[in-house]
Amino acid sequence: MSLTHLDSAGRARMVDVGGKPVTARRAVASGAVVMKPETLALITSGGIAKGDVLAAARIAGIMAAKKTGELIPLCHPLGLDSVEVNLDPTGPGTLTITATASVTGKTGVEMEALTAVSVAALTVYDMCKAADKEMTIGDIRLEAKSGGRSGDYRRAAD
Amino acid sequence: MSLTHLDSAGRARMVDVGGKPVTARRAVASGAVVMKPETLALITSGGIAKGDVLAAARIAGIMAAKKTGELIPLCHPLGLDSVEVNLDPTGPGTLTITATASVTGKTGVEMEALTAVSVAALTVYDMCKAADKEMTIGDIRLEAKSGGRSGDYRRAAD
Amino acid sequence: MSLTHLDSAGRARMVDVGGKPVTARRAVASGAVVMKPETLALITSGGIAKGDVLAAARIAGIMAAKKTGELIPLCHPLGLDSVEVNLDPTGPGTLTITATASVTGKTGVEMEALTAVSVAALTVYDMCKAADKEMTIGDIRLEAKSGGRSGDYRRAAD
Amino acid sequence: MSLTHLDSAGRARMVDVGGKPVTARRAVASGAVVMKPETLALITSGGIAKGDVLAAARIAGIMAAKKTGELIPLCHPLGLDSVEVNLDPTGPGTLTITATASVTGKTGVEMEALTAVSVAALTVYDMCKAADKEMTIGDIRLEAKSGGRSGDYRRAAD
Amino acid sequence: MSLTHLDSAGRARMVDVGGKPVTARRAVASGAVVMKPETLALITSGGIAKGDVLAAARIAGIMAAKKTGELIPLCHPLGLDSVEVNLDPTGPGTLTITATASVTGKTGVEMEALTAVSVAALTVYDMCKAADKEMTIGDIRLEAKSGGRSGDYRRAAD
Amino acid sequence: MSLTHLDSAGRARMVDVGGKPVTARRAVASGAVVMKPETLALITSGGIAKGDVLAAARIAGIMAAKKTGELIPLCHPLGLDSVEVNLDPTGPGTLTITATASVTGKTGVEMEALTAVSVAALTVYDMCKAADKEMTIGDIRLEAKSGGRSGDYRRAAD
Repeated sequence: MSLTHLDSAGRARMVDVGGKPVTARRAVASGAVVMKPETLALITSGGIAKGDVLAAARIAGIMAAKKTGELIPLCHPLGLDSVEVNLDPTGPGTLTITATASVTGKTGVEMEALTAVSVAALTVYDMCKAADKEMTIGDIRLEAKSGGRSGDYRRAAD
Repeated sequence: MSLTHLDSAGRARMVDVGGKPVTARRAVASGAVVMKPETLALITSGGIAKGDVLAAARIAGIMAAKKTGELIPLCHPLGLDSVEVNLDPTGPGTLTITATASVTGKTGVEMEALTAVSVAALTVYDMCKAADKEMTIGDIRLEAKSGGRSGDYRRAAD
Repeated sequence: MSLTHLDSAGRARMVDVGGKPVTARRAVASGAVVMKPETLALITSGGIAKGDVLAAARIAGIMAAKKTGELIPLCHPLGLDSVEVNLDPTGPGTLTITATASVTGKTGVEMEALTAVSVAALTVYDMCKAADKEMTIGDIRLEAKSGGRSGDYRRAAD
Repeated sequence: MSLTHLDSAGRARMVDVGGKPVTARRAVASGAVVMKPETLALITSGGIAKGDVLAAARIAGIMAAKKTGELIPLCHPLGLDSVEVNLDPTGPGTLTITATASVTGKTGVEMEALTAVSVAALTVYDMCKAADKEMTIGDIRLEAKSGGRSGDYRRAAD
Repeated sequence: MSLTHLDSAGRARMVDVGGKPVTARRAVASGAVVMKPETLALITSGGIAKGDVLAAARIAGIMAAKKTGELIPLCHPLGLDSVEVNLDPTGPGTLTITATASVTGKTGVEMEALTAVSVAALTVYDMCKAADKEMTIGDIRLEAKSGGRSGDYRRAAD
Repeated sequence: MSLTHLDSAGRARMVDVGGKPVTARRAVASGAVVMKPETLALITSGGIAKGDVLAAARIAGIMAAKKTGELIPLCHPLGLDSVEVNLDPTGPGTLTITATASVTGKTGVEMEALTAVSVAALTVYDMCKAADKEMTIGDIRLEAKSGGRSGDYRRAAD
């Protein structure tokens, strides 16, 4: 077994997708920001303010998905069909982030979904760090992908 | 307590750092990519190839640190003094990433260090995903920061 | 009626264009920079210098059209077929800007044409602001679009 | 009188600010999106959804201010101290946008404030264009600036 | 004969490729960094260090190819299929850089290959400049292109 | 002797400039595009059109100088004080490009001047390539630098 992003001499290269068919592809990734319950309460409760941390993180994640090819050296630039980012409290101090990306193209959108989750998480960290320096970003992983030669994938439940 | 990145009506804003003193600031962040031991072996062993996944991730992390202000909506653009990214195997299937950023400025560089770790981890994921879709990126956190009004911080050991 | 860029819970999302047909699309937008007649004279008259404000604004507008997907959070990244930006004096102190963008794709190029006009106008402002701080940028609007499911559109005369 | 951004042969150049003093500078710009009253109602009324058009535009404006030096050919890259963008209904179909930018530096931040207004307006247009193609963006102008050699400026009331 | 990137009035424009067929296109470009033999020895010899200048330059070249449409005013933004950058010593003080880019599209990828070579060369310069300020970057040229209406091209041997 | 951009284990890093003094720094770089005399005549002669190739290249070079820290992996992001790019015919088929960059900062601006020359040259190539595929970009080099600890430098005449 070998790594597709290295040539036979071990040098980094962008894999040639020229001969691959154009198909509808979709990927879902998730991750979580774990924080003090009080910090999560600051984000999710209280009047008109409640929207803006989540809205900012959602938009930062969507915009980052569009920048994936610029951030990850060997990613192909892609004309995304859609990106969606959701942030939901799933525990006393846990904010779970899910991103779905899709494209009609020659290569998958796993990296776009994972990048959207990562940057949405960093945005939450940034906006809350004055209140809680100990937040941790974790469990960033691919949940599912479809389309393309390698077939559909769904992560096994933990 | 309230979130500094929201004004009194809860609207997102970039905090005004105009009146803050210019000081030497430094931040260290870390994170890990957890993968199959065989995947880690593909990265770290074997002839001339061994360098390029780690070299690509290191460079992607450094370049991402410089893009932090572009990715995170309310981050200040900063003229970084230095960025350093290291990737080291710390267990059978664990690659630990550490990033250090420094600046002489009015605001801290936590987000730059965290962004470097995140994008270096995404680059490892990208270059190895054909071999291992189940990799997880986690434990992204601030280890230490120094400089600035709020004093030095060092994360308590787990 | 509702806004397509918000889901049913009012959260921003990038509209999924995956199922839309690829067609030839074109959009024309216009706007104006209103300034003192003397300022316009500095731009349009006088020897070899005359080209560079207009040339700089034209190029800035074209380059900005290519950045639209990066600037506008929910815009799809597009592989533009063409962009053209023209700047013409249309009154004693009025410089009218027109931009045309086209693509063969699943979604329209209104935002690309409008962004080209806006950034060309800002470039004129920047290059002339030492001479005239009171310039106003206005009347930025879609003139016409063609291609796509919603049919052709032409703005009614004022 | 001549244009500072052209040299004596009329060629575009970035004005040398190397000898200028570092001072605290601030600029305020404004503009408006004029739309059908029903469109404005879709943005400003109604349940949880109401935040996201305004939140997206606010964030797009702030992020664009940080990109000003990248969009406008002869603008100096600046390390902004703060950016604030507000969007307020000021008439039956008028949404007024105000942006304030500040820096401690050698050159003013008019272009950053004007760019923030322009891109926030374009974002509103984008998110509402399916409902209202006739929206117009206008009256983009500098309201006030302070700091720097040329003294304070406040636009005369209309 | 005239320049395709200027309209009949001599104004810059992005050539309209809307009517051109989509074909597989490929371009190869090359260039060289000429330096002191001792400088080249620092790059190519010596233990574990040897990889990183070449790895950094290779990655910088690949990432720059993806940014071509952002750097060159009238280039079309392209969804590249592949990019490959190689750096090889070809004389006592000569490091030759070759880049190959490919796309399935309406317009060629010469500029992408040439940009990859240029930025890889600049990266070598940057990393070695403390040791050798006299390095020269030269002989940047198109070696070959295929695909598209104008037929295949191969540069004549010198 | 060793390379400053590699640590003792040969890994790429951004050199720490935190302890270096802030001084006025300036760098001049040059390069040339060599083409058929007829191609140069298309650029430099003839009516109103003559300005736009040179104007586009000048602006592309200035904008690229501002992007240097984004293109070259280990370059520090800099707040440039000025950039100037000139293009002058210096022989029957030779267009010479000179760029000057300056900053008040902790690190030099050689890379900014060299990047401006390179991207201005690529822009000329792009705009003329339909007329002349054999153009060569060469002789890109540092002419002079001043400011900073290492003292002034002026390249010896050939």
